[in-house]
Amino acid sequence: MTDLRQQASDCKKASRKLAWLATGDKDRILLDLAAQLRARQRELLEANRLDCEAGSAAGLSSALLDRLALNAQRIEGMAQGCEQVARLTDPVGREIAWTRPNGLLIRKVRVPLGVLCIVYEARPNVTVESACLAIKSGNGALLRGSRTALNSNQALVKIIQECLVRAGLPAEAVAGVADLSHESITTLARMNGLVDLMIPRGGAELIQRVVETSTVPVLETGVGVCHLYVHPSADLEMAVPVILNSKCSRPAVCNSLETLLVDAAVAADLLTRLEPELRDKVRVQGCSRTLQQWPWAVPATAENWDTESMDLVLNVRVVENLDEALDHISQHSTGHTEAILTRDLESARRFQQEVDACAVNVNASTRFTDGGEFGFGAEIGISTQKMHARGPVGLDELTTYKYWVEGQGQIR
Amino acid sequence: MTDLRQQASDCKKASRKLAWLATGDKDRILLDLAAQLRARQRELLEANRLDCEAGSAAGLSSALLDRLALNAQRIEGMAQGCEQVARLTDPVGREIAWTRPNGLLIRKVRVPLGVLCIVYEARPNVTVESACLAIKSGNGALLRGSRTALNSNQALVKIIQECLVRAGLPAEAVAGVADLSHESITTLARMNGLVDLMIPRGGAELIQRVVETSTVPVLETGVGVCHLYVHPSADLEMAVPVILNSKCSRPAVCNSLETLLVDAAVAADLLTRLEPELRDKVRVQGCSRTLQQWPWAVPATAENWDTESMDLVLNVRVVENLDEALDHISQHSTGHTEAILTRDLESARRFQQEVDACAVNVNASTRFTDGGEFGFGAEIGISTQKMHARGPVGLDELTTYKYWVEGQGQIR
Repeated sequence: MTDLRQQASDCKKASRKLAWLATGDKDRILLDLAAQLRARQRELLEANRLDCEAGSAAGLSSALLDRLALNAQRIEGMAQGCEQVARLTDPVGREIAWTRPNGLLIRKVRVPLGVLCIVYEARPNVTVESACLAIKSGNGALLRGSRTALNSNQALVKIIQECLVRAGLPAEAVAGVADLSHESITTLARMNGLVDLMIPRGGAELIQRVVETSTVPVLETGVGVCHLYVHPSADLEMAVPVILNSKCSRPAVCNSLETLLVDAAVAADLLTRLEPELRDKVRVQGCSRTLQQWPWAVPATAENWDTESMDLVLNVRVVENLDEALDHISQHSTGHTEAILTRDLESARRFQQEVDACAVNVNASTRFTDGGEFGFGAEIGISTQKMHARGPVGLDELTTYKYWVEGQGQIR
Repeated sequence: MTDLRQQASDCKKASRKLAWLATGDKDRILLDLAAQLRARQRELLEANRLDCEAGSAAGLSSALLDRLALNAQRIEGMAQGCEQVARLTDPVGREIAWTRPNGLLIRKVRVPLGVLCIVYEARPNVTVESACLAIKSGNGALLRGSRTALNSNQALVKIIQECLVRAGLPAEAVAGVADLSHESITTLARMNGLVDLMIPRGGAELIQRVVETSTVPVLETGVGVCHLYVHPSADLEMAVPVILNSKCSRPAVCNSLETLLVDAAVAADLLTRLEPELRDKVRVQGCSRTLQQWPWAVPATAENWDTESMDLVLNVRVVENLDEALDHISQHSTGHTEAILTRDLESARRFQQEVDACAVNVNASTRFTDGGEFGFGAEIGISTQKMHARGPVGLDELTTYKYWVEGQGQIR
């Protein structure tokens, strides 16, 4: 634990060197990193092989083993990720300024947060992605990956640190947390003054644990129990592809659809259209009215409505009207993405105003809640909280601001 | 505790009615409130008299009794405060929007946070101020004042609720928390989903308690151990009034000066100029070098450097150079306001970049960190944190945003 504090303290100190580095210098580090990842593929695959073998021996599920595994294509993906971040606009130093009647110049200037602590699970590419976003936004990074990916993460952090050192920066600005005990997360989450932001990237359980114990601010990302409500006025021909895209295009991500709410007025027609697309492909967990039309579906349990399945599983509920849909959403939403299909302007407006979520979609797939799709470029996650950042968290959201007040001896 | 949850739940429900109220309707409520406060002065003074008498009998300090007391002038001040908030620009509904290549329209729209829970100490005017800012920003408010001001706060909340009801809104949108037990603060601070933001307004101890126990986001305001460093290049003639203004113009507020750091190169000269202004007026707690020149000062204890005195008390330390000043500030700053007096551009720039505080002043009094002085109008406090809001917290900072994504059946 003392070592952990030392690592955080070293990272904080090193982060000050990163804070005001010129954009060009930061971009050169990222491009160097991209080149190094490509050049040292063999070293990375070797380290990753150790993790995969250990994981296999420990009986990890094939899904987890797949997330853990690196290959040439995934390493190329990481390298391209670095290049992409290098192309993004640097938020640090951007300012708005105004002069007060007494002559004071007030400058509101974007600055880095300080040290980001990212806690994540198996995927080694999160190591590179998080480091790139931290470096470009001028922040230090404490990377607390999982034990499963230990060798892969160590190899990646070593390469990142070499790039920093080559650029004349302290290696400690991006550090792999050495203490991988369960308690280390709580310890980090209470290091006010050293850690400026906790970013848990993973399942609901991990995020909840960090929120519960943290005194450092937490960026809650990711958990998405997303709903789509089909209003009586909806274009049902449009509805079918939008529903299928929302649910099936990538079910293991947070912006995929979990619960379809169908207005009773169009339920028979819509379910008839959807049946050939869903039956035998998707596990449908339905309300009693859904089951009347789709006897092949299984009855939904109370828990289902609050669960992010990450799989080809869809909850379906027939609702009486927009009010019942809004009630259902307000009870079960995780504040991620909620959608309505409608041709009625008044219903669309009411849905947009009343639903309390980071993204509220009208006549569009839930899958669009994404930094790239919004035009922001790379992101560190989708914030489901309201403070600081909501929705895709990119470089801007990894900064704060301060006021530079400049005078000539003004007093009050 | 069940009652508390019910109050919060009622407030949350009522807040939805406030959320999209037209600006004109909100302003009419505030102007009505101003008129009512003036018209019902006698009722307010009567309630306040009960609190003052009880406080006096309980042996409250004269400073606390003064903060508690209402009079005609203070009630007029509250009424004018309401009118001032009515004149401020409404942030709700402000948006930026862009269209993506696939035709999706993405609208980033300012919306209220939901329910603010304000925890505060003796001053009854905080009740009105907080309610006005909540109403204008479209938020519900749970007001948890102190037992000392119970009668005054109840009388004020009653008037506020009557104004809401006259405007056709539910009274519960602004509620005085009935449970004034110590535990009620912790209970409120863990009501995720009902309370959206905790705003402790008070001393360091109150704020720390809320931060420690809260799972709801907290807006940390107020504690200011502010420093002013006099660089060798400073205009010493300018320095004297700026230092006096920073320390003496209102010592009991958070942006007043606590610690003067004097560069050794100008210490003898500056202390000579300051002596007649400070001696017999201000208690000086000095380092050993300060005491050599000012034997009338008292030796500073380790604790002094970290204490917000709220009084005519000034810590003075002679430092070797800018580095030592920056080190001192990084160790003892509470992230509020830090100032440098200098004519050297390079030193000013380094100070601005390296000091991690909400306001970093060059050649200006520390007292300018204030919503009014920045040109923002009324504020609910000065945030000393980095996330969400830093510096003066006005209407804008009491809102969040959501994305309205509007399409014609787009899929990904």
